[in-house]
Amino acid sequence: MRYTLGCHLAYEVKQETLFIFNLEVAKLKRHVDLTESLSLSPDLPVRRYTVPDLGNRYAAVLVPAGAFSLDYEAEVTLDVLRGDPGGIGEMAVADLPLDILPYLLPSRFVSSDRLAPYALAEFGEAPKGFERVNRICNWIHDHIAYQRGASDEETTADETLLKRAGVCRDFAHLGIAFCRALGIPARFVSCYAYGLVPCDFHAVFEAYLDGRWWLFDATRQANLDGLVRIGVGRDAAEIAFSTPFGEMTPTGMEIRIARADGAPEAGPRTTDAISTEEPAPNAGAA
Amino acid sequence: MRYTLGCHLAYEVKQETLFIFNLEVAKLKRHVDLTESLSLSPDLPVRRYTVPDLGNRYAAVLVPAGAFSLDYEAEVTLDVLRGDPGGIGEMAVADLPLDILPYLLPSRFVSSDRLAPYALAEFGEAPKGFERVNRICNWIHDHIAYQRGASDEETTADETLLKRAGVCRDFAHLGIAFCRALGIPARFVSCYAYGLVPCDFHAVFEAYLDGRWWLFDATRQANLDGLVRIGVGRDAAEIAFSTPFGEMTPTGMEIRIARADGAPEAGPRTTDAISTEEPAPNAGAA
Amino acid sequence: MRYTLGCHLAYEVKQETLFIFNLEVAKLKRHVDLTESLSLSPDLPVRRYTVPDLGNRYAAVLVPAGAFSLDYEAEVTLDVLRGDPGGIGEMAVADLPLDILPYLLPSRFVSSDRLAPYALAEFGEAPKGFERVNRICNWIHDHIAYQRGASDEETTADETLLKRAGVCRDFAHLGIAFCRALGIPARFVSCYAYGLVPCDFHAVFEAYLDGRWWLFDATRQANLDGLVRIGVGRDAAEIAFSTPFGEMTPTGMEIRIARADGAPEAGPRTTDAISTEEPAPNAGAA
Amino acid sequence: MRYTLGCHLAYEVKQETLFIFNLEVAKLKRHVDLTESLSLSPDLPVRRYTVPDLGNRYAAVLVPAGAFSLDYEAEVTLDVLRGDPGGIGEMAVADLPLDILPYLLPSRFVSSDRLAPYALAEFGEAPKGFERVNRICNWIHDHIAYQRGASDEETTADETLLKRAGVCRDFAHLGIAFCRALGIPARFVSCYAYGLVPCDFHAVFEAYLDGRWWLFDATRQANLDGLVRIGVGRDAAEIAFSTPFGEMTPTGMEIRIARADGAPEAGPRTTDAISTEEPAPNAGAA
Repeated sequence: MRYTLGCHLAYEVKQETLFIFNLEVAKLKRHVDLTESLSLSPDLPVRRYTVPDLGNRYAAVLVPAGAFSLDYEAEVTLDVLRGDPGGIGEMAVADLPLDILPYLLPSRFVSSDRLAPYALAEFGEAPKGFERVNRICNWIHDHIAYQRGASDEETTADETLLKRAGVCRDFAHLGIAFCRALGIPARFVSCYAYGLVPCDFHAVFEAYLDGRWWLFDATRQANLDGLVRIGVGRDAAEIAFSTPFGEMTPTGMEIRIARADGAPEAGPRTTDAISTEEPAPNAGAA
Repeated sequence: MRYTLGCHLAYEVKQETLFIFNLEVAKLKRHVDLTESLSLSPDLPVRRYTVPDLGNRYAAVLVPAGAFSLDYEAEVTLDVLRGDPGGIGEMAVADLPLDILPYLLPSRFVSSDRLAPYALAEFGEAPKGFERVNRICNWIHDHIAYQRGASDEETTADETLLKRAGVCRDFAHLGIAFCRALGIPARFVSCYAYGLVPCDFHAVFEAYLDGRWWLFDATRQANLDGLVRIGVGRDAAEIAFSTPFGEMTPTGMEIRIARADGAPEAGPRTTDAISTEEPAPNAGAA
Repeated sequence: MRYTLGCHLAYEVKQETLFIFNLEVAKLKRHVDLTESLSLSPDLPVRRYTVPDLGNRYAAVLVPAGAFSLDYEAEVTLDVLRGDPGGIGEMAVADLPLDILPYLLPSRFVSSDRLAPYALAEFGEAPKGFERVNRICNWIHDHIAYQRGASDEETTADETLLKRAGVCRDFAHLGIAFCRALGIPARFVSCYAYGLVPCDFHAVFEAYLDGRWWLFDATRQANLDGLVRIGVGRDAAEIAFSTPFGEMTPTGMEIRIARADGAPEAGPRTTDAISTEEPAPNAGAA
Repeated sequence: MRYTLGCHLAYEVKQETLFIFNLEVAKLKRHVDLTESLSLSPDLPVRRYTVPDLGNRYAAVLVPAGAFSLDYEAEVTLDVLRGDPGGIGEMAVADLPLDILPYLLPSRFVSSDRLAPYALAEFGEAPKGFERVNRICNWIHDHIAYQRGASDEETTADETLLKRAGVCRDFAHLGIAFCRALGIPARFVSCYAYGLVPCDFHAVFEAYLDGRWWLFDATRQANLDGLVRIGVGRDAAEIAFSTPFGEMTPTGMEIRIARADGAPEAGPRTTDAISTEEPAPNAGAA
């Protein structure tokens, strides 16, 4: 499916500010025929860095005091892989590629070490594999209220569990924490999300099952086969859409994604297993 | 200087356990003429992974129930770079290579976001560069008691600050947190430490100044020019010397390092600027 | 029912230490025909204070360096009040006596403010009154593992919920937190507990329903009609059996309680509503 | 000195709400010739409770949906006791009246147990008595920024220490925590504060020294001899000026205090030792 998407961000910069943006479509094999443009006003030099293997694209701009805005436009065909949920099992930790290990460890907002007893008590006996991660998502969807303002940029997964409320970022952190606590590698994904209402940058997560990363969205608010990835990381800290160093105030923000053929959104949301990632390189070979 | 070093670890494994060890000397250009041997008892297959660029070496071993031990022996010449502390300044965030960015972000045990006000209040006005990081180390040395048992494997930098006590791991986390909060990239280093009494795996940290990683040890317990690196990471989570998945009990542990020529420890500890890392690749080029 | 009970505590005092003990049977109307003796070795002066209304008895002893022990023996008839659980409802907050208010507020280990969303989500729709508090106890019993060593003297109710494990103190704190969060006054009770195996100082809680304090034990380990009260307070901080100021090490501790007639423990544990408290004085009158 | 003071509070009540107010001048011997009036609009019945010994006055009002306002007016002569700071020492814990004990224990927002190492490291060697508590206040004043919005109603003393910012409530909690950690009983005081700009409900604290409660204000914003007490408690939880149970929105709030003779504020703020409390009853007698 081909999508057209983009965003408009505006800021009032009070003192010279370095922005590190991470909002362009990730460089992935399954992102096909990408066309895009990034324009800044005023026009300023951009320093760029793409993370090897992951495809996250960082753009650094040093902005002087004054009004500043950014417009990003892209069109891309999303060539998702569909799997049979019933056939996707877990891997023993002993069989995981060793370069996947960091995604088993706790990170700033994913306190999987603190949440291990909770995860084991709730999901320790669940059928392993796609089914177990799906149950984690259902549990989060049923127990955590989606509520703007319930969290802030320092909220951790264990706090979300206590508060019983959060936004997509928190849903993803909690899902990742439960997975890691159970020995399932998991990581944070930021994206443009087809079907999300109202449209916004979205956060979901990936779990590593049977040698491949599979997508999960515990908010159940977007189409899993309509997620155009921006970045992937240990947690939200690594892939904020904008990391500013300086003094500024956001003054505007619009995000959009639609089918490139202009057709309306297709019916019900899929419950298929969806992946946009290639299998990991065989890093764990003896 | 050439060092001979090694460790002996023993475990009683109750149920099949996957160990991921990270205790071999890192693959670095400044680790010269490395000779080494790793032996396991019983002899078991080892899966290996070396992290590109960083040189951390992971060894995974699946161990059946029963007694298990590991012996590592190595000899290596440490070709440190010495700098003039007075000439080492900070880089503006806008000038940092973009692949260094993750070391500015908070991580599981380095709550640099929570500690930002504290760091700014204590060190915001200090002279920038090597001098500022040195002051951070002096402050930690003067304010935090080195005390075994004061912390555990979930202790974060802000907890150490409140408890006013910790071990080398906690001193490093706090130093890293203050640096990151001030816009100085910093990361966690595990090592064999010449001069440390009693000998143990040691933890120090590196701060990124003037385009290179420089070593700092807020415990002031080892020689900065006698640190043979094992691994480097965001914080202790990433480079534990042993990450076990299974049920086991440690039953023995010995670590050693000495000058290969058998000479006694040289006089007072250096206050030079010491680095064993090459400058970062030019990832930040426009 | 008449009980014989007591305790033996021993300490090695390193530097002069003030002990404030709270281990004698509380002064309550329903504690009938109390006979008791407290002996110290060495024999030292005791300063005493009994809290008005509550009946908690504090005994302060200043102990010089050396071995120190305390023996307490008591016999008391426990005249419990039994209620019909089905007939015990909640009071509207507007109808509560105002001197009960402190037991609605969060305290050091009872983070009822942080746990309010959790309590509302789990128990907000439960039938009000004795039944609701009973469900809270069942939920705690089913979700929290009784596990020595899972907590320490700084553990709060929200931490217990995350750790899914604790001891009687933690079970009581969590029960109190859920009650307060729902608008039900609740407080911490320390006691000698007939039927507890192995015997120890026990902690349970009271909830204020229909104008009277009713006993609840989320551990389900003791007989509700065999709890001889020592003290009552906001949480464990207020009624530790021993609060030492100084340097000492506990060297021995034995607690015992048995039926005074020597009969063996009677059959199954009661699920009745049990109270040993008189209704609150009419503090809330207009 | 005679003061005239008062407050106006207004609310939009959405669903029937029980308000428990604690804003009337406390019943104290040193509050002389108190005249006052409390008027509600609409006029509603008030249930009252005055805490024995402490003098805190609670007023409960059940308010139906709609606009609601409260006006309180009072005039009182404040007969403060002045002491000589140099002559006010600390009492050994062994000499404290036992009914003072609760003010040595940690409470919800006063995490004196967690802050004990910090308190000992900073103030363990300070001269004991009034001087030590004064140093604590100076330290807080120098290290914590007075900043509206830096904290919320769940902020604890250890969080304030990390954030290096707070409001009067947080300054008081931190001062109390340091005192308790050092063995000095301390408690939270809410008051009308002559000299505070802009005028608001104020929070200070009392430390128990040489058998009497003495006032301290780590914010240094009000006159110690111009504090007309409302309430006293373990911490802010116990003496909020308004504790609402229900759904409502505050719509207005004005607080005022002035000299009854209309004279302008007298010169510099006193650094005397000031007390408005009688010595504790001799609860600790053997």
